[in-house]
Amino acid sequence: MPSGNPIITLLSDFGDSDPYVGSMKGVILSICPQAQMVDLVHNIAAHQIVNGAVALETAYAFFPAGAIHLAVVDPGVGSDRRSIAAQAGHWYFVAPDNGLLTLILKAHPDHKIVALEESAYHLPAVSRTFAGRDVFAPAAAYLGTGVPLEALGPPVLDPVLLDLPEPDFAEDCIAAHVIYIDHFGNCFCDLREVDFREWCQKRKPSGLLIGAGKVHLRKLSQSYSEVATGKPLAIFSSSGRLEVAVNQGSAAEQLGLSVGHTVKISAV
Amino acid sequence: MPSGNPIITLLSDFGDSDPYVGSMKGVILSICPQAQMVDLVHNIAAHQIVNGAVALETAYAFFPAGAIHLAVVDPGVGSDRRSIAAQAGHWYFVAPDNGLLTLILKAHPDHKIVALEESAYHLPAVSRTFAGRDVFAPAAAYLGTGVPLEALGPPVLDPVLLDLPEPDFAEDCIAAHVIYIDHFGNCFCDLREVDFREWCQKRKPSGLLIGAGKVHLRKLSQSYSEVATGKPLAIFSSSGRLEVAVNQGSAAEQLGLSVGHTVKISAV
Amino acid sequence: MPSGNPIITLLSDFGDSDPYVGSMKGVILSICPQAQMVDLVHNIAAHQIVNGAVALETAYAFFPAGAIHLAVVDPGVGSDRRSIAAQAGHWYFVAPDNGLLTLILKAHPDHKIVALEESAYHLPAVSRTFAGRDVFAPAAAYLGTGVPLEALGPPVLDPVLLDLPEPDFAEDCIAAHVIYIDHFGNCFCDLREVDFREWCQKRKPSGLLIGAGKVHLRKLSQSYSEVATGKPLAIFSSSGRLEVAVNQGSAAEQLGLSVGHTVKISAV
Repeated sequence: MPSGNPIITLLSDFGDSDPYVGSMKGVILSICPQAQMVDLVHNIAAHQIVNGAVALETAYAFFPAGAIHLAVVDPGVGSDRRSIAAQAGHWYFVAPDNGLLTLILKAHPDHKIVALEESAYHLPAVSRTFAGRDVFAPAAAYLGTGVPLEALGPPVLDPVLLDLPEPDFAEDCIAAHVIYIDHFGNCFCDLREVDFREWCQKRKPSGLLIGAGKVHLRKLSQSYSEVATGKPLAIFSSSGRLEVAVNQGSAAEQLGLSVGHTVKISAV
Repeated sequence: MPSGNPIITLLSDFGDSDPYVGSMKGVILSICPQAQMVDLVHNIAAHQIVNGAVALETAYAFFPAGAIHLAVVDPGVGSDRRSIAAQAGHWYFVAPDNGLLTLILKAHPDHKIVALEESAYHLPAVSRTFAGRDVFAPAAAYLGTGVPLEALGPPVLDPVLLDLPEPDFAEDCIAAHVIYIDHFGNCFCDLREVDFREWCQKRKPSGLLIGAGKVHLRKLSQSYSEVATGKPLAIFSSSGRLEVAVNQGSAAEQLGLSVGHTVKISAV
Repeated sequence: MPSGNPIITLLSDFGDSDPYVGSMKGVILSICPQAQMVDLVHNIAAHQIVNGAVALETAYAFFPAGAIHLAVVDPGVGSDRRSIAAQAGHWYFVAPDNGLLTLILKAHPDHKIVALEESAYHLPAVSRTFAGRDVFAPAAAYLGTGVPLEALGPPVLDPVLLDLPEPDFAEDCIAAHVIYIDHFGNCFCDLREVDFREWCQKRKPSGLLIGAGKVHLRKLSQSYSEVATGKPLAIFSSSGRLEVAVNQGSAAEQLGLSVGHTVKISAV
């Protein structure tokens, strides 16, 4: 733990019309009054674990070392799915063991994971339907007070990992896939800039053709405003991923893109 | 007041597209810079006091003793409805006197209430339309600085109480009523687990039949995942109330339930 | 800087379904761990600078002296538009130089502005698409740690100012314009109470006729509840502006008002 107040972030599909996130924060403050709590996002599409996994990956590393990321997208609440806490990279994570941490655990192979089985670190009464409040929030709060990860329960060596899409690299093209669409309608793909640069290094293409929904683009842009308002572009985004966007418009709507659609980059 | 920074929670129907909650927080920090502020929920349906009352009851007791709950659903702003602050159980509450605190005041009959008439604890200029910022936020903030409840104004002995639905207990059945629907479409009823257990104790029914909208259920579940994805169930929820849900779906939509609908539990 | 923890508010059009605001907060806490962060509003209509300018003006002055207001509605991100920080009145502001601060800068003509060109106060890697996280959030955070405004970059003397609507004052009438509609449907105009009072002082009208969309009103109300539920009224609002409202209803919907529509006050 670094000095200063412990930071606990919260991500969920609890939306913003119910007092569920507020209840979790009450539990956290009851256990760890000095917690500095930050909402990452609570409008993850209901029960959509992949959506939550990508959102978490976008933000977690911008927090100081020691920050505790509490993530709850939990369609299996009350089933025998495990509840876990992990240390990965410089951060802690608390989540259901349903793949929500897939991108984190793959990025930090030297992680440690435990199952939240030590009931001393649950709320005294655990309900049938709200592990976020009764199990996950207390775990994050106790980590914030300095309880070591290992105290929360036994090690987990086989966490559930999602089979997330990966770009297909071929000799003269890459098939990327839309994995996240933001509220502006910007479409983010599984292709990362670092992997694209490596592919380019080998092929040294003289030009590019990028097929995205209804359009073909002939280059990668360096800013949205390189194209006229309302026109489409492709760019490597602030999260290091290929992004298809429309300057001041919605690429999802205008180009007919949804999560799962292919964006094809061809060398020409 | 317990040690540590004072906690002030905020609940309202101010939504999330205007700077109204932010303005209240500015006022609070101007008076009580050490306040730890937590949003409960701000998307209470506009002017729907019952909706706010149930949301507040769901969350308030998960906060540490001494927490100050500021709740503003205030269709009568600017009228002669009173503004009040209350001490009830281990917590403080600040709200319009329009029934928003009904469930709190009934749960803690030993409450103390005052009217927010002492203008020294208002903003210097009180507007015609935003008591949340000009009267309620300052009251919560001054409580946070240690001003005693009694200093805020004269006692109130006749707070407005809403006539909320109550379950009807008969010899061989209970008629419960939907009082809150969350953003997942889970439907919460006025029937509490503790009262249901007591009724069962006396009747010792050999089985149950639960009529909820379009379906009849034959038991109470212990988790959502006891039924297949997309199937309905009844369960006692994390707030201690009867809940009608659909595993990973919307019970409100699928079963045609709205606030006010009856859910009937029959002994068979 | 006043004593106490530095306050940093955040306003944007980043919505509430993506982890963008959360990422900015991670950056702020990494630089200024003691920051007290407050959301003003993040559902400014996408790319609508005027909407953001009015929302910011509504809230900023309710924060203590020294508060730092970070505002990002930034359709020109990545273009050659400047990034700026300003000291105006008792507060600091960080924003793109696209007119978002127009109302602030006009209200405080003695402001100081700098361009955020000193890269030591950016994130080490600045992305192509997210200046909010990479440039604006660090600037606000460094101001919070006590870095002087002047250190962030060279002075700006010609900030971009929007050509916002102003009321037209004539001998026997005022033409005001709707500039903001809140989520209740209340419609706020460019006419300020102070200017209206001055106009009245000179004309001493015996009565008023207020034309707003489909209705004519014969007076200014002192509270929403002066009229029956569902009826329209005109009132000077909590932000000091002329407001057309419907008691417990939506004036925008019921009277057919949109941003840009004229509300005409005639002396009779």
